[in-house]
Amino acid sequence: MPAKAARGATLLSPALLSPALLSPALLIAKKRDGQRLTSEQLQQFVDGFMQGYVADYQMSAFLMAALLNGLDDRETSALTDIMLHSGSVLALPSVKRYKIDKHSTGGVGDKVSICLAPLVASCGLAVPMISGRGLGHTGGTLDKLEAIKGYNTRLNAQKFERVVREVGASIIGQTPELAPADRRIYALRDVTATVESIPLIVASILSKKLAEGIDGLVLDVKVGRGAFMKTLPEARALARALIRVGKRAGKDVSACITNMDTPLGKTIGNALEVREAIEVVRGEGPADLVEITLALGEQMLLLGGAAKTRAQARALLQRAIDQGQAAQCLARMIAAQGGDGRVVERPQLLPRAPVQRVLHAKKSGRVLDINPLTLGLCAIDLGAGRLRAEQKVDPAVGIELLAQLGDPVKAGQGLMVVHARKEGDAQRALATCIDAFRVGAGPVRKQPLVIERL
Amino acid sequence: MPAKAARGATLLSPALLSPALLSPALLIAKKRDGQRLTSEQLQQFVDGFMQGYVADYQMSAFLMAALLNGLDDRETSALTDIMLHSGSVLALPSVKRYKIDKHSTGGVGDKVSICLAPLVASCGLAVPMISGRGLGHTGGTLDKLEAIKGYNTRLNAQKFERVVREVGASIIGQTPELAPADRRIYALRDVTATVESIPLIVASILSKKLAEGIDGLVLDVKVGRGAFMKTLPEARALARALIRVGKRAGKDVSACITNMDTPLGKTIGNALEVREAIEVVRGEGPADLVEITLALGEQMLLLGGAAKTRAQARALLQRAIDQGQAAQCLARMIAAQGGDGRVVERPQLLPRAPVQRVLHAKKSGRVLDINPLTLGLCAIDLGAGRLRAEQKVDPAVGIELLAQLGDPVKAGQGLMVVHARKEGDAQRALATCIDAFRVGAGPVRKQPLVIERL
Repeated sequence: MPAKAARGATLLSPALLSPALLSPALLIAKKRDGQRLTSEQLQQFVDGFMQGYVADYQMSAFLMAALLNGLDDRETSALTDIMLHSGSVLALPSVKRYKIDKHSTGGVGDKVSICLAPLVASCGLAVPMISGRGLGHTGGTLDKLEAIKGYNTRLNAQKFERVVREVGASIIGQTPELAPADRRIYALRDVTATVESIPLIVASILSKKLAEGIDGLVLDVKVGRGAFMKTLPEARALARALIRVGKRAGKDVSACITNMDTPLGKTIGNALEVREAIEVVRGEGPADLVEITLALGEQMLLLGGAAKTRAQARALLQRAIDQGQAAQCLARMIAAQGGDGRVVERPQLLPRAPVQRVLHAKKSGRVLDINPLTLGLCAIDLGAGRLRAEQKVDPAVGIELLAQLGDPVKAGQGLMVVHARKEGDAQRALATCIDAFRVGAGPVRKQPLVIERL
Repeated sequence: MPAKAARGATLLSPALLSPALLSPALLIAKKRDGQRLTSEQLQQFVDGFMQGYVADYQMSAFLMAALLNGLDDRETSALTDIMLHSGSVLALPSVKRYKIDKHSTGGVGDKVSICLAPLVASCGLAVPMISGRGLGHTGGTLDKLEAIKGYNTRLNAQKFERVVREVGASIIGQTPELAPADRRIYALRDVTATVESIPLIVASILSKKLAEGIDGLVLDVKVGRGAFMKTLPEARALARALIRVGKRAGKDVSACITNMDTPLGKTIGNALEVREAIEVVRGEGPADLVEITLALGEQMLLLGGAAKTRAQARALLQRAIDQGQAAQCLARMIAAQGGDGRVVERPQLLPRAPVQRVLHAKKSGRVLDINPLTLGLCAIDLGAGRLRAEQKVDPAVGIELLAQLGDPVKAGQGLMVVHARKEGDAQRALATCIDAFRVGAGPVRKQPLVIERL
């Protein structure tokens, strides 16, 4: 123990202190000095936080110390378990199928959950999915699903279990009962620059996912400009940590590291993305989105024992699309949650923005680059996303790409359509988005969509 | 900038953000990633904290990042200046003498301020001293002075200036107007394990001291078991940082590193320590306390131009003691602040505890060790100090050593006297304190009192 740590430990005899008052500072000091905390100590600290005798400012100091000095797998497992058990944990006893979920670390245009859940469910697994709302440049599955008229993301546990049992898949929002410690800690991390810690990210993701009562989990760790993880080593470190800690919790876990250097699919914005997800289950989706969906579906079928090989898994998934079970399952899920299931047959029922304006290419060539951040921020500005939790989103607005990476375009040809509420919004978006595209004669740096399977 | 920092900086375009809401997290992220903050950024952060739009939990995350990643001298100077100007800064325009103060990093039995201030004032300098209360094992000058009946530590700025001008020295408590940002930040550091940072300690000390309107400052950086700094390299680093940053603020600054491996002087406890400080100005103090007082006084007279050499300074100080000016000055200071100045002539006017019990040596030999922490904690337990800011102290109780390090004792001879409020307190103290003493035949590890002058 370095000398600077010695004050709390030696000058103030524990016997003389009120433990409720001073233990938090001593626990923070341990992590500050690079020591490991026991499960009991972490439990005491998080319990104290939830009960109010560890203050927000003590938790945030701890989080910064944890970010800078790290948590090992044992500590991360303990923290996951503590946050998981800070609330109720679903068991879904009436669901007899293998229960599996997918979690993505978030990207621009990532609507995979909406097509993947019914697709995998239609291959014989159960997908009890508890999802989140969008914040910042990455959209949220709940916001997207709520673009469907009547879709209720707030089912109670009984109803959720029933939809999973009867339909095979259900996508709802996090309830206050699930991992409340994670919710309170995450709110602090968001405003104290303590989000960017792999152990804290792992504990946050897994505490929420394990609360779903799943047997297995497939992680989609996105890497690139539009993702939280900018580099492959970082993404790999996060994926591996998620797998290690998930396995310590007794779950089957695997991961794909997937590309997020350009937007996924052709749409950004809630109703637009639902429409595109519907296209995937109907066998009409864009190649990149289909590929990621199938890759993650393969992992889920393999983990759940529904297939023995990747080829077999892919064949099952393809058949569920081709024979219509995936689309039917999506329609049934929407209907079971109060939404208008007819949107799967008739996507034109989804809300449409009143103003649609085309962004034209200034010159001919190939699309050499599409910056997902520029488009993601532009979609927020249009009203499709939010920067603060209390903001509302507009279901209809967003961006629809007419050309993807590598596509040849001619000068004057449309690159994308802006879907806006007002003309002024559309014009602002057009002015911003032109910088997101690079059209020219150079080589196209097209990276593989699925970079690694772990 | 490491990739993990990039999120706030690149994903959320500043133009889209409310600066009042998100800037704090971006500033914290910069320090988290080891970057330097500009003076303007620090100003914005501390101002925001004082104005309420930077939350406690954001400040504590920043403090932990600053502790672990450091602040350079420029940042430390800026922080000092910002905290200093968060409140009013005294100028003491009517005090024409050179104004100097002493600050000690705190130790067990450290009552030096009470004898040093009048001693230096009686040599021609002005000593405007704003002091603190005890917390933990180190006592506070204010608590000690308040053992004198009527002594008022809460003078307003006008009265303080008048006492300094007319008496030469005044010792008061920090008012709410002085460095309020430091007070609020320190309160957070105390409960978030972020005290142990040299730059934060430097900014805290100097922001308070510079608010006194001083020209010069002498620092007593204590090192050893009973001090905040346990090792000489740490103490040296703190002393040097204080000198560098103090000089950047345009002040004359020097420091002594002094030994705190055993209690300073023979008393621990408020009235007991006042009595001992009185003994020093009367020329009757114990050798170790006198030596530290004179060493610090020398530095002050040298900085203030009252002497050219250490020898000359010591001669001046000794004369002020021998001829009675120092004692007179202390009596006048006490009287000017509403206290009973007669205590300097008649220390028996100070409160005395009803129960006095002697701790006897179990065997004969030399006193090989006296643990200051054991005695300091015991004094707290008797009621002489506090572990929490809201606790009251008992002026009369404490510990009085009958033997100091290296003294020969015989079995059954008194080692110390416990001054207690109740018999039970005294018995508990006797049982604890016996472990503080080591008596035997081995060599006495007597270290120099003044280890270094910087």
